[in-house]
Amino acid sequence: MKIVMEPIGIVHHNKESVPRHWSISDVRGSLEIDRNYLEGLRDIHPGDLIVVLFCFHKSAPFSDRLLVQNPPHCNEAKGVFSTCSPRRPNPIGLSVLKVLKMNENIMEVAGLDMLDGTHILDIKPHMVPPDGWDESFSIS
Amino acid sequence: MKIVMEPIGIVHHNKESVPRHWSISDVRGSLEIDRNYLEGLRDIHPGDLIVVLFCFHKSAPFSDRLLVQNPPHCNEAKGVFSTCSPRRPNPIGLSVLKVLKMNENIMEVAGLDMLDGTHILDIKPHMVPPDGWDESFSIS
Repeated sequence: MKIVMEPIGIVHHNKESVPRHWSISDVRGSLEIDRNYLEGLRDIHPGDLIVVLFCFHKSAPFSDRLLVQNPPHCNEAKGVFSTCSPRRPNPIGLSVLKVLKMNENIMEVAGLDMLDGTHILDIKPHMVPPDGWDESFSIS
Repeated sequence: MKIVMEPIGIVHHNKESVPRHWSISDVRGSLEIDRNYLEGLRDIHPGDLIVVLFCFHKSAPFSDRLLVQNPPHCNEAKGVFSTCSPRRPNPIGLSVLKVLKMNENIMEVAGLDMLDGTHILDIKPHMVPPDGWDESFSIS
């Protein structure tokens, strides 16, 4: 089964390289969203945290030898689903970014960890689990 | 430009309906991941919170009239990118789930808000912004 998606926008910044993860990034840049989606952005405001899903467009196709990887900041190998590696079965990345300014379909943001030219797939509000939410689930 | 993805697994549970969001869900079920990816799961353990990206496979195609929507729990209309609506330009959903048990490629989880039979696209570790991370970014 194939699932086909199309970018809703593109990331712009002027850095040749970016930190490996948004949580350690102070890189600023902009998200240029297709004008067709302008109305969908109307409730995003400066100061908001957003979740951006994007495509790792420079990643080579996944292969079995990438099921366990050595993240660059980590001494031990890890299963791919416990990492944020760009080399994963479906090349979807997730970053939490802070919105600095909205100018129609151009969003100035901080926290970028994706390359200039990255294709954006979705934007969602950032939500954290409510206090105590997961403590009610007993593990076995 | 088209981006093509393939499911890595499927969601199973026995509920006819689910809460509208993981943060208010105590629904339990399982994620059956394709056996080809078994090694990629090796560092996920009971008690972990995971981010699951999935496909809203029952959603009708997006159209302009869905750019602003009325979420069912909310009195005001909102731009789609400020909602978790299943009706969005690319039909990607995001849930935070708690892992209850691992049994090879079958993950028992709680917090489900997706339908039985939903196709899974990716699993990532759950991370929250470090304290003070976003306060260093001045908005304008």
